[in-house]
Amino acid sequence: MTYMTPFTTWIDLKDGTIPKAASVQTQQLSDMRGLFADRQAEVALLAQNPLIYRVYNATNNAKEEGQLLYSTTVIYPGEVGDEYFMTKGHYHAKGDRAELYYCLQGEGYLLLQTPEGEINAQAMAPGAASYVPPYWGHRTVNTGLSNFVFLAVFPADAGYDYKTIAERGFAALIVAKNGQAQVVPNPNYLARV
Amino acid sequence: MTYMTPFTTWIDLKDGTIPKAASVQTQQLSDMRGLFADRQAEVALLAQNPLIYRVYNATNNAKEEGQLLYSTTVIYPGEVGDEYFMTKGHYHAKGDRAELYYCLQGEGYLLLQTPEGEINAQAMAPGAASYVPPYWGHRTVNTGLSNFVFLAVFPADAGYDYKTIAERGFAALIVAKNGQAQVVPNPNYLARV
Repeated sequence: MTYMTPFTTWIDLKDGTIPKAASVQTQQLSDMRGLFADRQAEVALLAQNPLIYRVYNATNNAKEEGQLLYSTTVIYPGEVGDEYFMTKGHYHAKGDRAELYYCLQGEGYLLLQTPEGEINAQAMAPGAASYVPPYWGHRTVNTGLSNFVFLAVFPADAGYDYKTIAERGFAALIVAKNGQAQVVPNPNYLARV
Repeated sequence: MTYMTPFTTWIDLKDGTIPKAASVQTQQLSDMRGLFADRQAEVALLAQNPLIYRVYNATNNAKEEGQLLYSTTVIYPGEVGDEYFMTKGHYHAKGDRAELYYCLQGEGYLLLQTPEGEINAQAMAPGAASYVPPYWGHRTVNTGLSNFVFLAVFPADAGYDYKTIAERGFAALIVAKNGQAQVVPNPNYLARV
């Protein structure tokens, strides 16, 4: 039998990046059109087209049952209207695959929802290990003034469903009200009927 | 459908413990009889019966395919003869389940071996994310002067096989030679034939 060789991925503790990442995904506002609730604010900000977040994928492990994938994500601070910078958010293609987020820097929320639109929000700061149970869609939100950085670990065969969120949105938004993060209903959410 | 509720486990960044752990396993030398190579040194040290390591299990997630389990481990500094304090080590009962270790404090090694006795050693320090690929038995070793602390994440259905290591040992030891960690062959290792 041939075995995969063990390895170590080094995370830069200054900024949470992975200098030797297998791949890096960069998301600017233009890559996220339609995901923020305030479309006028989005259009106005597109002139600057700010960097919203970067994902540093540690490995290219085979997408097989039993293997894990892991990455760090850096969400930059900022707002589109009063909605904080966030990730696109997704469900897992294999819905029963869970995920663990471990916060390295900054502060933010793990925002989750069931396929039926039930919302849950987990506040995160360094030391928080937040669990995405099976079937919950999930997105992360930077509610602080500095970068929000976390390590994500998930089964390599989980896969991604970004389409459901892109089409229907999340049932809640996380917005700044008098400088405080608040979870509020999303008027644009398209519930399943 | 009923969904599991998302939650956050807080890791104490001072010492890597989980104050609200679902369970804690404490391993003293008397719990590890026969695992260190120098039996005379082990017997002599049993009078003090030092604490070797503690595991803080974050959750009691169901041991189902798709779920994850996670924990922090604190290995205290010390030696039995010239062999550093370490964990018992195990294979996964489901051999194809991988695991991720993320170092939080201190320095040490992830020591791995295949069922046929091939050895691999990954040096770890804060920022190291070390991958245990499918089928590799694994043990962690504190080669530093302070606590060696790491977060472990693994599929909830991986299960444990401690018996193989207890009966056959690892093919290599990590020992102190002139204050430096060295990986050396284990004269007591029982290879499969």
